[in-house]
Amino acid sequence: MDQLQFNSDGLIPAVVQDADSGEVLMLAYMDKTAVERTLKEGKTVFYSRSRKAYWVKGEQSGHTQDVVDVSTDCDRDTLVIRVKQRGGACHLGYRTCFVHPLDKSGKLGSPTQEKVFDPDKIYKS
Amino acid sequence: MDQLQFNSDGLIPAVVQDADSGEVLMLAYMDKTAVERTLKEGKTVFYSRSRKAYWVKGEQSGHTQDVVDVSTDCDRDTLVIRVKQRGGACHLGYRTCFVHPLDKSGKLGSPTQEKVFDPDKIYKS
Repeated sequence: MDQLQFNSDGLIPAVVQDADSGEVLMLAYMDKTAVERTLKEGKTVFYSRSRKAYWVKGEQSGHTQDVVDVSTDCDRDTLVIRVKQRGGACHLGYRTCFVHPLDKSGKLGSPTQEKVFDPDKIYKS
Repeated sequence: MDQLQFNSDGLIPAVVQDADSGEVLMLAYMDKTAVERTLKEGKTVFYSRSRKAYWVKGEQSGHTQDVVDVSTDCDRDTLVIRVKQRGGACHLGYRTCFVHPLDKSGKLGSPTQEKVFDPDKIYKS
């Protein structure tokens, strides 16, 4: 753990990848405690920079991510976490968060995926 | 392009994924110009935070990344770039940068991949 390089905010980016399909599901940030909890509890736990709080992915929606394995890179400043994703990873209802294609001019296209759940029914205000 | 959310340093993290194998190859950062160049030139161009300079991936090694497609997430603050990787993505000689597994205690394991090239022969000092 001490070998990981956290940034000046004490965070490390974590790329979450579907262990079955290989799709990149999302990118979120972890501090040291979130990494420790993710490794020990076997479900992804992130640190929200805006809310300054921990969040267990899927705590409200039930769309948890069961950790398959975790690896770090040559610089030890990024994590890849392969998971079994329950439901969809994206809070908008998509399987992955990366739904908007960019064309050569940088223009964003419409979502390339169908929604797998209705966020209005999952996330109660 | 104006819809992308760059961080307070003017950067956006880019997850680079092998379009064939689905492996996550590396994570690096781009500013607006690097994103524009990547989209237009069809090869990945990053911005080095430490060197404060642009770098074309593979410029020295020949291990360039031909862009297949680019997408962004629901928050528009991360990119996934799917590429055709020539040679290996990692400057240490591995196919991907994510070679170190983490066990449940956070201890780093030995590389899980064999080197695909000898960095001493590729990167001249």
